[in-house]
Amino acid sequence: MHPLRLDSNRYFSSDASERAIARELFAGIEKLPIVSPHGHTDPAWFAVNAPFEDAVSLLIWPDHYLLRLLYSQGVSLESLGLRPRDGAPFETDRRKIWRLFAQHYYVFRGTPSRLWLDHTFCEVFALDRRLELETADYYYDAIAEKLAQPDFRPRALLERFNIEVLATTETALDPLTHHQAIAKSGWDVRVITTFRPDEVVDPDHEAFAESLPQLGDLTGEDVMSRKGYLRALENRRAWFRQHGATATDHGPPTAQTADLSSSDAEALHALVVTGKADESERELFRAQMLTEMARMSLDDGMVMQIHPSVWRNHDERLFRRFGRNVGGDVPNRGGFTAQLKPLLDRFGDAKDFTLLLFTLDETTYARELAPLAGLYPCLKLGPAWWFLDSPEGMMRYRRRVTESAGFYNLAGFNDDTRAFFSIPARHELARRIDCAYLAELVSRKRLEMDEAAEVAADLAYRMSKKVYKL
Amino acid sequence: MHPLRLDSNRYFSSDASERAIARELFAGIEKLPIVSPHGHTDPAWFAVNAPFEDAVSLLIWPDHYLLRLLYSQGVSLESLGLRPRDGAPFETDRRKIWRLFAQHYYVFRGTPSRLWLDHTFCEVFALDRRLELETADYYYDAIAEKLAQPDFRPRALLERFNIEVLATTETALDPLTHHQAIAKSGWDVRVITTFRPDEVVDPDHEAFAESLPQLGDLTGEDVMSRKGYLRALENRRAWFRQHGATATDHGPPTAQTADLSSSDAEALHALVVTGKADESERELFRAQMLTEMARMSLDDGMVMQIHPSVWRNHDERLFRRFGRNVGGDVPNRGGFTAQLKPLLDRFGDAKDFTLLLFTLDETTYARELAPLAGLYPCLKLGPAWWFLDSPEGMMRYRRRVTESAGFYNLAGFNDDTRAFFSIPARHELARRIDCAYLAELVSRKRLEMDEAAEVAADLAYRMSKKVYKL
Amino acid sequence: MHPLRLDSNRYFSSDASERAIARELFAGIEKLPIVSPHGHTDPAWFAVNAPFEDAVSLLIWPDHYLLRLLYSQGVSLESLGLRPRDGAPFETDRRKIWRLFAQHYYVFRGTPSRLWLDHTFCEVFALDRRLELETADYYYDAIAEKLAQPDFRPRALLERFNIEVLATTETALDPLTHHQAIAKSGWDVRVITTFRPDEVVDPDHEAFAESLPQLGDLTGEDVMSRKGYLRALENRRAWFRQHGATATDHGPPTAQTADLSSSDAEALHALVVTGKADESERELFRAQMLTEMARMSLDDGMVMQIHPSVWRNHDERLFRRFGRNVGGDVPNRGGFTAQLKPLLDRFGDAKDFTLLLFTLDETTYARELAPLAGLYPCLKLGPAWWFLDSPEGMMRYRRRVTESAGFYNLAGFNDDTRAFFSIPARHELARRIDCAYLAELVSRKRLEMDEAAEVAADLAYRMSKKVYKL
Repeated sequence: MHPLRLDSNRYFSSDASERAIARELFAGIEKLPIVSPHGHTDPAWFAVNAPFEDAVSLLIWPDHYLLRLLYSQGVSLESLGLRPRDGAPFETDRRKIWRLFAQHYYVFRGTPSRLWLDHTFCEVFALDRRLELETADYYYDAIAEKLAQPDFRPRALLERFNIEVLATTETALDPLTHHQAIAKSGWDVRVITTFRPDEVVDPDHEAFAESLPQLGDLTGEDVMSRKGYLRALENRRAWFRQHGATATDHGPPTAQTADLSSSDAEALHALVVTGKADESERELFRAQMLTEMARMSLDDGMVMQIHPSVWRNHDERLFRRFGRNVGGDVPNRGGFTAQLKPLLDRFGDAKDFTLLLFTLDETTYARELAPLAGLYPCLKLGPAWWFLDSPEGMMRYRRRVTESAGFYNLAGFNDDTRAFFSIPARHELARRIDCAYLAELVSRKRLEMDEAAEVAADLAYRMSKKVYKL
Repeated sequence: MHPLRLDSNRYFSSDASERAIARELFAGIEKLPIVSPHGHTDPAWFAVNAPFEDAVSLLIWPDHYLLRLLYSQGVSLESLGLRPRDGAPFETDRRKIWRLFAQHYYVFRGTPSRLWLDHTFCEVFALDRRLELETADYYYDAIAEKLAQPDFRPRALLERFNIEVLATTETALDPLTHHQAIAKSGWDVRVITTFRPDEVVDPDHEAFAESLPQLGDLTGEDVMSRKGYLRALENRRAWFRQHGATATDHGPPTAQTADLSSSDAEALHALVVTGKADESERELFRAQMLTEMARMSLDDGMVMQIHPSVWRNHDERLFRRFGRNVGGDVPNRGGFTAQLKPLLDRFGDAKDFTLLLFTLDETTYARELAPLAGLYPCLKLGPAWWFLDSPEGMMRYRRRVTESAGFYNLAGFNDDTRAFFSIPARHELARRIDCAYLAELVSRKRLEMDEAAEVAADLAYRMSKKVYKL
Repeated sequence: MHPLRLDSNRYFSSDASERAIARELFAGIEKLPIVSPHGHTDPAWFAVNAPFEDAVSLLIWPDHYLLRLLYSQGVSLESLGLRPRDGAPFETDRRKIWRLFAQHYYVFRGTPSRLWLDHTFCEVFALDRRLELETADYYYDAIAEKLAQPDFRPRALLERFNIEVLATTETALDPLTHHQAIAKSGWDVRVITTFRPDEVVDPDHEAFAESLPQLGDLTGEDVMSRKGYLRALENRRAWFRQHGATATDHGPPTAQTADLSSSDAEALHALVVTGKADESERELFRAQMLTEMARMSLDDGMVMQIHPSVWRNHDERLFRRFGRNVGGDVPNRGGFTAQLKPLLDRFGDAKDFTLLLFTLDETTYARELAPLAGLYPCLKLGPAWWFLDSPEGMMRYRRRVTESAGFYNLAGFNDDTRAFFSIPARHELARRIDCAYLAELVSRKRLEMDEAAEVAADLAYRMSKKVYKL
């Protein structure tokens, strides 16, 4: 049995003087509310406010980081309780699943998942021993007991987590029922939506063919004509804005943009909606639609986010058997300098337009993203993302981005998670790493203490609110 | 109001023992003269020796780092006093411009510009408060007062800065009038030129078409024939050597080289000079000309520098409205291993030939540049450059280059700047970062102290003189 | 004259508290036996057990790191005693060669070669002064004296170095005579072989044309038919397994794999063996053969290693004059995510199949290798390799790989060397750097001490044995 505890100096420098600076900086921002402008929690939780079920469905199943690393170690997803589409047997005894997880908990050593989980165990569930096979039952029972209590319901936790705004993400066709219910309930915490139109703007999306007519039905527009199609999208954006959305989010395979003439764009649209477009035409359509989305953002003021460079479902076997979001995605190479040029040539200096960029390819941080963000007025950089939102990943991001882009072309932190219980852990980790970085600058006299304190609060709280217009 | 001061331990490790080593190493090199073998200051300053005008024209306008970051934050170049080519209004009140700059000085937090400027303010102008809106006038007036004094004239400053040699850069057609005037004046500080032939060897250079006949006129050669063209270039190189040049500099979009047969090269030349070459032929011409320049360096002993991987004027709007060098350039991807092969196959081990490589793509440091420089006798690596000549950028360079190339395939420091007043700051920063890196090696017992002291002096002073034959 | 000594804290953090943690971790693994599952020492040494000759043939000639860096500094390989194929004169006085080396020893400052050599000088030869021109003779004579002693014979050293298993690497056609002799001798240290079939599976290998018929002769198979060819390879793999091999090793120019239908594979085979395949067909053949090798590994249980991304003999002049392995190789760009997909689609989750990946392109660590290894059950990552097996290179590897792949998708350390005397130095360096990294995690509360100690022993000893089935 090993004790579980969170050290108050965690993630800070080993050097006592530098650590003291970090601690002072962190003390100034630790209690700031959480702003979560980009995430994937389920709005139904906050609309319905039902108790969470158990440790397995709450902590393991929604967390693709856990599933993928366990799978890489030979732990099958069936044995973790995921139901295979091919009808093969799968484990249904949740306590047994939890024990299997506990037994393999050592494989997360050195990963951010371990840090987030230990934070959750300690701070949210008040557990005081390390998770391992012999404490598995203690964990399972203690968590079950807590989850049955009223103060572990979703709304209570959102308040306890000190979350001031939480953005979820919905596809363009979503009726936003849960957001309507939340609004009607009179609850005063802001849970807002984000407009994610991938399935209606990417001809290669598996749902494109069926989504397009739905988009027409929903909006009463003729989506087979380019004008009707664009009006339909503007119509859905307006619907999302009415439900609190201040941002759109786009997950194309690459950041390629285009700026076609109206006639070329119309001809391309005709090919795409009739299914006659070839691969390069479909890519051009996606590229053109990013520029169209930028144009609409100029009109309606929504912040535009691009999250490219992901190879979705690289492991096709997992995808066929278990569907999306079980850990089978991997990063792809990024590229922005040439790719964004058509869009930037058109809107690079547009007033009140914000284009937020993310990448999974950190070779683009210093070579492309920071120099571009340090030049174009519309560009801001999102934080270290997905495979890179970890102590080392965040530190590399700061080191490579700050010197060319400064701090004020950034956008604060995003947790980008569907693992609700990990939100405080993720924001705290980010804040601590930022303080560790700033402490290094202060200690080495690259920044004065009063300025570092201001930057720390900007990164932790103020920037998100400003950039996302929250 | 905040005090402005330079800490004597700045940029060194937070660890007291490691910092003490860095301090000792730095004490041994701090007073060494500055050798500036590659830069872009205006030779007219030293020929004419007129007083500098004011803070705005001296410190803001020539510094593309400042312009670009301010522009990225929504500060228009017009409001900073740059005259747009389209006749739009622009600010002419320099005190007002300075105040605008002071108000936005916080955006430079964490960037090297901030470090260079604070060094200049403190060390050159003896200012003791931080620049912000409320100290803007104090700054503007104090700087004006200093600039009016005789010891703030260009030559006096060059001596005060302890600059032993300063190289400027001129295009191949430059008459070198100012360098002639400096030589005739009997002044004993060396201000030399560098041969930069981009506009007469790159068919895609905007000035190529008009420069080519000028090259013919200037040299009396028939540049329409390949032999005459090459002789004309040799002729200009000789002219530059007479004015002190020991180096050439080349800024092609990529490092691609070629080694064509004479007949192929002649056919290509004919296409290019008659404007009939297509894009790939123009690229091949540039590639071939790098190898020709290498051959000429073998003959005349000039060190050859290649500065590739820049996308000039990526922001076309800025270029159209304000011209070159206002911050609109961004890095491009680099590549050397395949690209340099034709040249290396021919001259890789040539006696007394030095080819100096620079990059804006740091992914090539450990993968390409260090392994190549640690193999081919002709290759040396230039220091971390442009977007990378910063505390973090320099440290990454050292970490990624040293282990495969050692220290003795490098070329010391370049400031590469048109911001004359920042030269001491840039050299000091580089020297401190080198001492910080060496102190880490010494502290971790990867290098002995006496050897580190020797390397520090080599990097700070001796290598530049040796590699550039100064 | 300067003293030579190895500090007991070398390579650990400058911070006293972090250093103490590293020292404690290292104390726990320092004495663990060396497992060397991948290397290039000569099995004849251990079969014949003759004394080593002298310092030059032992320490300089087999070490391409030394040759390349000296060559880059203008020291010709002839002057180092290498015999040029063109009949040009070369130095034969070994004492003179050693002096030349000593005179240039300073160029290795900051490189891992310097650390390995000093370790060898100090620990193996008990030398106590730094190598430089004035100590050259002292070194040469002291080393000669030691090498004449019985306890400096290969087998005695292997035992003194505490090497539990040593794997050498032989080509597919090797008769394995030396391994047979070692086995027959009754010596109880395991010296095993590794199956390296490049010359019989890569149509671009210089020896392919003559190796193919030899493969047929050796196995009695008709290699002109695809079935016979594959049987011949299976036959050779069985032969290697009989001589202790537990692994295969593959050095293709890229990691590209393919998964052709039988009929397509047969047609391609016919083209290749008759010399009619064009470049892309030859590449496709190599790609297909990687997948075939994976299939065979499923059958016979051998661990499969891919070492791609090397541009062999980039310096063609060196290759023509001195042959392979004199330092003329450089890294090439890597790529795994798309390249491995055909193989992973087929065998990604196969039971008991292990595919070990290496790279010379560290941009793939965080972007490709760690995310892939943290997903596919068959994948494991080899350690930082070749140009990257250095203090900084290893630390970058840990920082970029651990957070996505964890520690348990790795494979321990490989020394991958033909420089026998450097094996203890290389393993010790790797163990110290791992302890330095783990100490940082412990000190910053990212890992508990008891877990770090377990990971340290896993990385130093247990993982290699497990992954390589030793």
